[in-house]
Amino acid sequence: MIKKVDHIGIAVKSIEKTLPFYTDVLNLPLIGIEEVETQKVRVAFLQAGSTKLELLEPISEESPIAKFIEKRGEGIHHVALGVESIEERISEMKEKGIRMIDDQPRSGAGGADIAFMHPKSAAGVLFELCEKKGMKG
Amino acid sequence: MIKKVDHIGIAVKSIEKTLPFYTDVLNLPLIGIEEVETQKVRVAFLQAGSTKLELLEPISEESPIAKFIEKRGEGIHHVALGVESIEERISEMKEKGIRMIDDQPRSGAGGADIAFMHPKSAAGVLFELCEKKGMKG
Repeated sequence: MIKKVDHIGIAVKSIEKTLPFYTDVLNLPLIGIEEVETQKVRVAFLQAGSTKLELLEPISEESPIAKFIEKRGEGIHHVALGVESIEERISEMKEKGIRMIDDQPRSGAGGADIAFMHPKSAAGVLFELCEKKGMKG
Repeated sequence: MIKKVDHIGIAVKSIEKTLPFYTDVLNLPLIGIEEVETQKVRVAFLQAGSTKLELLEPISEESPIAKFIEKRGEGIHHVALGVESIEERISEMKEKGIRMIDDQPRSGAGGADIAFMHPKSAAGVLFELCEKKGMKG
């Protein structure tokens, strides 16, 4: 069911200030930067083997990422698991008693369909299910 | 320099209570469970594509993981980056101005040599450098 860890989401105050650590110190290739309006975030993806690191910068105080940083500080926000047939996976999770934040997939960065699981159902970890449709992953 | 995300470390109060979520709900294969005496933790590794999830359970109140859980609750603890020639990578990090928690590699779970970077040098993320010597990764 889980193909791989698609990416690790990291909450940052500023992509501009943080990016040099990832590109110049760790030497990770920058895949691209985009805005995800629905989540009120700017997103930078870096390649790390077959996984990606996703830097998440809030572009509004209403952003869930702004609230996360205010409460916990900058740091690792979520782990995204690459799946196929995300609707079926959501149904399967719910049948197994898992509480989903998203009962239906919604659009995430990089053209993916995503759905978050509730951390209380997953030992405190915010897991995202993530399906890339017809795009390189 | 970075080959891949070797694993994601997740602090849990109890591997016994948490493991069914990973093996039965997410269907991730359990690689094995071991104790790392130097860190006062029990560790369970699960395979997720080419990356692993590492559940970390404190076996003493002195464990850094016990202190993490006390302060922040259960959740994602660190991201381990797979490297070669870890001594050279540590030197390179320090030349680039990065503060290392471990100036010399030490033994981690799964027979790996590991060294942690200081989160203040890495935008709030606890990164581990991790080298597997002559073992399947």
